[in-house]
Amino acid sequence: MANGLVETLEKYVNDNKDTLIASLQDFLRIKSISAQNIGMEECAQFLKETMDNIGIETKMLRLEGAFPAVYGEIINPTAEKTLLIYGHYDVQPPEPLELWESDPFDPVIRDDVIYARGATDDKGNLWATIMAVKCLVDNDIELPINVKFFFEGEEEIGSPNMKAYMEAHQELMSADYTILCDRGIHESGRPQMYLGNKGIMNVEVTIKGAKRDVHSGQAPFIPNAAWHLVWLLNKLKDENDKILIPGYYDRVAKPSEEDLELLKSVPFDKEDYLKTYQIDDIIPKNEGVDALVSLLFQPTATINGLISGYQGEGSKTIVPNEATAKLDFRFVNDQDPEECKALIEDFFRKNYDGDIEVRYDDRRSPSKVPPSAEIVKISIDASKEVYGEDPVVWPFLDGSGPLSLFEEILGAPPIIIGLGAPFAYANTHAPNENISVDQYLKGIKLMATIYQRYGS
Amino acid sequence: MANGLVETLEKYVNDNKDTLIASLQDFLRIKSISAQNIGMEECAQFLKETMDNIGIETKMLRLEGAFPAVYGEIINPTAEKTLLIYGHYDVQPPEPLELWESDPFDPVIRDDVIYARGATDDKGNLWATIMAVKCLVDNDIELPINVKFFFEGEEEIGSPNMKAYMEAHQELMSADYTILCDRGIHESGRPQMYLGNKGIMNVEVTIKGAKRDVHSGQAPFIPNAAWHLVWLLNKLKDENDKILIPGYYDRVAKPSEEDLELLKSVPFDKEDYLKTYQIDDIIPKNEGVDALVSLLFQPTATINGLISGYQGEGSKTIVPNEATAKLDFRFVNDQDPEECKALIEDFFRKNYDGDIEVRYDDRRSPSKVPPSAEIVKISIDASKEVYGEDPVVWPFLDGSGPLSLFEEILGAPPIIIGLGAPFAYANTHAPNENISVDQYLKGIKLMATIYQRYGS
Repeated sequence: MANGLVETLEKYVNDNKDTLIASLQDFLRIKSISAQNIGMEECAQFLKETMDNIGIETKMLRLEGAFPAVYGEIINPTAEKTLLIYGHYDVQPPEPLELWESDPFDPVIRDDVIYARGATDDKGNLWATIMAVKCLVDNDIELPINVKFFFEGEEEIGSPNMKAYMEAHQELMSADYTILCDRGIHESGRPQMYLGNKGIMNVEVTIKGAKRDVHSGQAPFIPNAAWHLVWLLNKLKDENDKILIPGYYDRVAKPSEEDLELLKSVPFDKEDYLKTYQIDDIIPKNEGVDALVSLLFQPTATINGLISGYQGEGSKTIVPNEATAKLDFRFVNDQDPEECKALIEDFFRKNYDGDIEVRYDDRRSPSKVPPSAEIVKISIDASKEVYGEDPVVWPFLDGSGPLSLFEEILGAPPIIIGLGAPFAYANTHAPNENISVDQYLKGIKLMATIYQRYGS
Repeated sequence: MANGLVETLEKYVNDNKDTLIASLQDFLRIKSISAQNIGMEECAQFLKETMDNIGIETKMLRLEGAFPAVYGEIINPTAEKTLLIYGHYDVQPPEPLELWESDPFDPVIRDDVIYARGATDDKGNLWATIMAVKCLVDNDIELPINVKFFFEGEEEIGSPNMKAYMEAHQELMSADYTILCDRGIHESGRPQMYLGNKGIMNVEVTIKGAKRDVHSGQAPFIPNAAWHLVWLLNKLKDENDKILIPGYYDRVAKPSEEDLELLKSVPFDKEDYLKTYQIDDIIPKNEGVDALVSLLFQPTATINGLISGYQGEGSKTIVPNEATAKLDFRFVNDQDPEECKALIEDFFRKNYDGDIEVRYDDRRSPSKVPPSAEIVKISIDASKEVYGEDPVVWPFLDGSGPLSLFEEILGAPPIIIGLGAPFAYANTHAPNENISVDQYLKGIKLMATIYQRYGS
């Protein structure tokens, strides 16, 4: 049956290639630029109608002041498991237009590659997840699970209402797991997935001295906000990048054996990396898997910006009366952002007794699905079958995002599966964004296979 | 004879009060705004003619691209000593005009105070130094010394050609000592002088990481310029404001007994100071003279500005690829700026082995006339006689300036004597600048007394 399914899908996709491509092109043709409020309603309607026609029961979700979200579901009354699929139908603005080789909203195919704004990010990804349902339906293959779809229209403006949509439809969207399809396959051509991401909190620390900048002839008398900031930050992290806040590593778990196994599958070309960022060396002294462990399994405290005193050309002899550092703290594994925040607050309280203001932004928890989870195993196996290659599986995405919300609100821990072009070639957010026909069709087959296998 | 001189001057000034005031008003009426290139030539000519008329042999000094300087001298062929008097005839722009109670270039007298741009800074000061000559000449009192005058027109734009003027006329301007008249008496009404100032060097340190800002998800791999700057600066100075550069204090001499004696004469009201700068406390734990020793006899390393990464509102999760600190180093006593620069260079070389750029600006040496010098003793005594009060004598000005050039180029170590209104009330560089009639007339008597006593 396993071979049978993939062969069936293969035949169907080949036979219906033109229709599948044409329908994605129709979707790409509709401008849906959230940042410019262009075409959003039209695009959401088109998406809803397509889903309805496939047989997905669909409804438009609305929140005041937000672009609509499209929700859909195929409910199997006997199913025990539910998958939630996430994507977004909005796209980045296409500018600068003069750098496009063809109209960003007139998808053309050159050398089997479809060029259009949204081709990978995220219309191509999204479309594959619903065309996968069409495949199964057209072949009379019953879904052994419930599949739900949550497509928002505000990802490119920072998903300001994603949490509110989830909270307003908590039960409707609840699922066992979430699959986010908003990325690409690996540069090597191998399929790619991510089992979680880091948590994050942005922090802004401001130290205040005198009420105004003072002539630096007075330096021996006047507290210098910039110096105090330097001394304070120096106590926060040492030159080996170790965070010096007491207790900060208590919840930082070592990677599991399975995590380490997955990391072996992740290609990391150090020379390429150094070239990309034009640096002489990466910080970790170790190589290979050990370096990736440093990248993915260590909490970080990063200065994003320093602002104090005179910023212009030349010099100005002042004692600055204010100094600000912008930082982000990223959390891994079992770190609890609220607990970390309390430790950080404590650090600032204990280490500076002058005038200090600390702003703590919203926190995101780290999110991680264990490699042993059924959805992971099924997705890995399905990837192997469809692509004929082992997937690159990242235990953690190196960045942070709202992944944890899916678990926290909907009880549906998320993994990310990339169906688009590899990041290095996709030109997401840039001119000549694209997805190859092959990538798009494989995405359809992969998702159809996962829908059918999960819960069988 | 001592009493005789001051009495004579007193009588003369009283008898000629109206003329002396009217002539200063004429000088104040001429706009001479160097920053806006308004009236400069006219003002220099007026100054030259006035000096000529008094009997000072005067010539206009010119350098290409510079405003003219007015040089004058009274040479006594039998004199053994020479004094150089420095002042400037240019003024700050008067804006904002709406905040002036009367026209900044129509000097009016209200309650015995003359209001005009330049009243104290520096036309009032300057005029007193030449009217002092007129006093002596009109009373047939011969000058026992040579007196030279160097009045530049570019002080308010940073004296960009002062050094060049000195170098071009090194012999002409050479003297035993310089008196700079470009300040005010003390807020208490006591006369005030300064025997030197600190040296200074501005330094800009830039640390570079990757060739561009990198997403902070990569923080464990990418060198963070801001963190490296923090760690480096932390090694430069500790939380007790001690500069940690090896050998940096080797040439820092303790204040002499005489210096300490002078400091006892300096009123320092800590409560007033805290109120002025709106700070909770000054840094030195000691009080009184000990605090002033910290202010004046310790070298400083001051961060003037920090610039790195994201500077806007909110947050941006980047690893900044560049971080800059602007610093000033002030030198005291016998510190040699070139030697200090070498130590600082060595510090940066030894403590950071990544990509670093350090810009060292021009250096100024510290300048100090010992309290035991004859010119100091004479000026103190003359102040007592003319003002009837002990002068406030600062062994060092808390700021820095080009004082050392007078010694280095002209062999004429400078002291500063304030003839204008006290800084707190003078409104220099601000609307309603002023000098009281009494301050102006006392300035004339003081300078005449010094001219006559020095070398007698």
